[in-house]
Amino acid sequence: MEQMENITQPARAERTEIASLGEFGLIEHLTAGNTLKQETTKLGPGDDAAVLHYGEEKDLLLSTDLLLEGIHFDLSYVPLKHLGYKAAVVNFSDICAMNGIPAQLTVSVGISKRFSVEDMDELYAGIKLACKVYGVDLIGGDTSASLTGLTLCLTCTGNVEKDQAVLRSGAKVNDLICVSGNLGSAYMGLQLLEREKLIYQGQKDFQPDFAGKEYLLQRQLRPEARKDIVEKLAQKNIRPTSMIDISDGLSSDLMHICKQSKCGCRIYEDKLPIDYQTASLAEEMNMNLSTAALDGGEDYELLFTVPLELHDAIENWTDVRIVGYICAEQDGRKLITRDNTEIDIIAQGWKMA
Amino acid sequence: MEQMENITQPARAERTEIASLGEFGLIEHLTAGNTLKQETTKLGPGDDAAVLHYGEEKDLLLSTDLLLEGIHFDLSYVPLKHLGYKAAVVNFSDICAMNGIPAQLTVSVGISKRFSVEDMDELYAGIKLACKVYGVDLIGGDTSASLTGLTLCLTCTGNVEKDQAVLRSGAKVNDLICVSGNLGSAYMGLQLLEREKLIYQGQKDFQPDFAGKEYLLQRQLRPEARKDIVEKLAQKNIRPTSMIDISDGLSSDLMHICKQSKCGCRIYEDKLPIDYQTASLAEEMNMNLSTAALDGGEDYELLFTVPLELHDAIENWTDVRIVGYICAEQDGRKLITRDNTEIDIIAQGWKMA
Repeated sequence: MEQMENITQPARAERTEIASLGEFGLIEHLTAGNTLKQETTKLGPGDDAAVLHYGEEKDLLLSTDLLLEGIHFDLSYVPLKHLGYKAAVVNFSDICAMNGIPAQLTVSVGISKRFSVEDMDELYAGIKLACKVYGVDLIGGDTSASLTGLTLCLTCTGNVEKDQAVLRSGAKVNDLICVSGNLGSAYMGLQLLEREKLIYQGQKDFQPDFAGKEYLLQRQLRPEARKDIVEKLAQKNIRPTSMIDISDGLSSDLMHICKQSKCGCRIYEDKLPIDYQTASLAEEMNMNLSTAALDGGEDYELLFTVPLELHDAIENWTDVRIVGYICAEQDGRKLITRDNTEIDIIAQGWKMA
Repeated sequence: MEQMENITQPARAERTEIASLGEFGLIEHLTAGNTLKQETTKLGPGDDAAVLHYGEEKDLLLSTDLLLEGIHFDLSYVPLKHLGYKAAVVNFSDICAMNGIPAQLTVSVGISKRFSVEDMDELYAGIKLACKVYGVDLIGGDTSASLTGLTLCLTCTGNVEKDQAVLRSGAKVNDLICVSGNLGSAYMGLQLLEREKLIYQGQKDFQPDFAGKEYLLQRQLRPEARKDIVEKLAQKNIRPTSMIDISDGLSSDLMHICKQSKCGCRIYEDKLPIDYQTASLAEEMNMNLSTAALDGGEDYELLFTVPLELHDAIENWTDVRIVGYICAEQDGRKLITRDNTEIDIIAQGWKMA
């Protein structure tokens, strides 16, 4: 037993701001030197989910997400039911990103006085709907009073065939970089909501103008996890060499794959899959479309790499697009623009609020 | 797909305050009608942990806890290292309460600007120390910026021999009610810290007076999970009929067993295990000792029931005390005081802050 000499907080000479490390630096710093001793632990921190070995046929995946009011969501335009749905789906997406199928969910919620039982009913209606749509069991959680705002922490389990979990670290030189669905639409949905919120302020009987932009709102408020892509991969007998879900944006998430796979990459601007509504709103709002697609985040699409010889199998899959390829680490991580310039890709995490 | 007609929060006629349901009422309300469909789910919400079936030999336990600054901890007198240790141990305790051994832990943390990298190092030093002491692997988590204060959410897995998880619902009439260790000491440790905090306010060079009360501080600041009791139960070949860990206080936690086992109980005031330091400080502070033992909470001792025929085996176990017995539901749930009066026992959960 260690002695408990320090009852008050120890005085310290130094103070390093968390902002100086950034999100990813902080995680690396805190988990440095972490040792795993349990036989049942196959993979610890650093991927979309941990991998545990509890059965003979399947491996168990475990992922957790913390969602804080004012940081991850703004209740002035996000209905609680949508928040519940999205919070669950974001967790399911982490399981899909490991090539797994989500199975069980726990929900912990901290609630300030501002919220009523009816508010919690709305939140849970969204969570339960997501569980129903994805065939996931709600198996427990925790509730607590909170001094300020709404706090959510969800933990999801999932299954994957034994040794078939796909990590961020397996990409190889010459692999193709693939993306499901399209990019930037959730981000443009957010821009739209923020714009209408500004116009709304102080106006009674305000009717927001969302006509023709419903898809963008849906992508922002009610994203889906690409469980269908994981199932299709299994049907097509394709096991990606690496995979991640796009939560922070293609740039950031591709950098995780490159860093953990110790490789470089080339991405082609003209290959980025973009929906018509995304392009149309970006033009209307005078925003850079490629920036939205590369750095927007919250798409919850799957980003994965496959060996070059699977080119034709992927090319014929309408819901997946090849956007570039993996190269050697010393060749760098670059975007090739429409006018054929090479630009370095940089990862971004959260910054201190 | 449901339509998303309500972009703004729906207007509602009613507003039911969460305080009107209380913690336990809210949890029951939110999980009412919850259906479990996955083959791998053996037990859902309502116990210390969920029970999952992933292996042939063992069942998997899963428990999660949310800890919020200002609600669950006060950093003016709780060192971050102790907070980290306690946060982990509280989770391990939930696994022990199911007759399980903790195995893996995820840690999610929301951090406001007030905290430095060194603060996080302290917090994680405590978490890692607890993992080391209990042989648990730290397998992942999430970090986030936060607008206010420190938010922690920990999720723990554990193992139990197949079908040997002990639930709250298995107590039978005539079973003996047993408690490990002693009660009320963590609560008296908290009273001591609160008292010194009041005295301290505005004084420079203040030296708190904790002499002779170190055990109470340790129980409050550095509690332990009774993994040793779970191991001893296995060695002694005793499988409790029901079990829970004492986090809210003996009264509250015994009421969970009675409610879920559909039974009544009798507890004897003069059988409650109380440490000398607890009794001494209660007298000094003019507080009711039995109230501290019954309602104090945070003891993280194990409360369990065993069949009557195990009386001698328990009686000879110095670290476990028999405090009463289970009776029929219609006979009520009562405390027999030292002067032989019967008092109804009432459960308390958290209230809105």
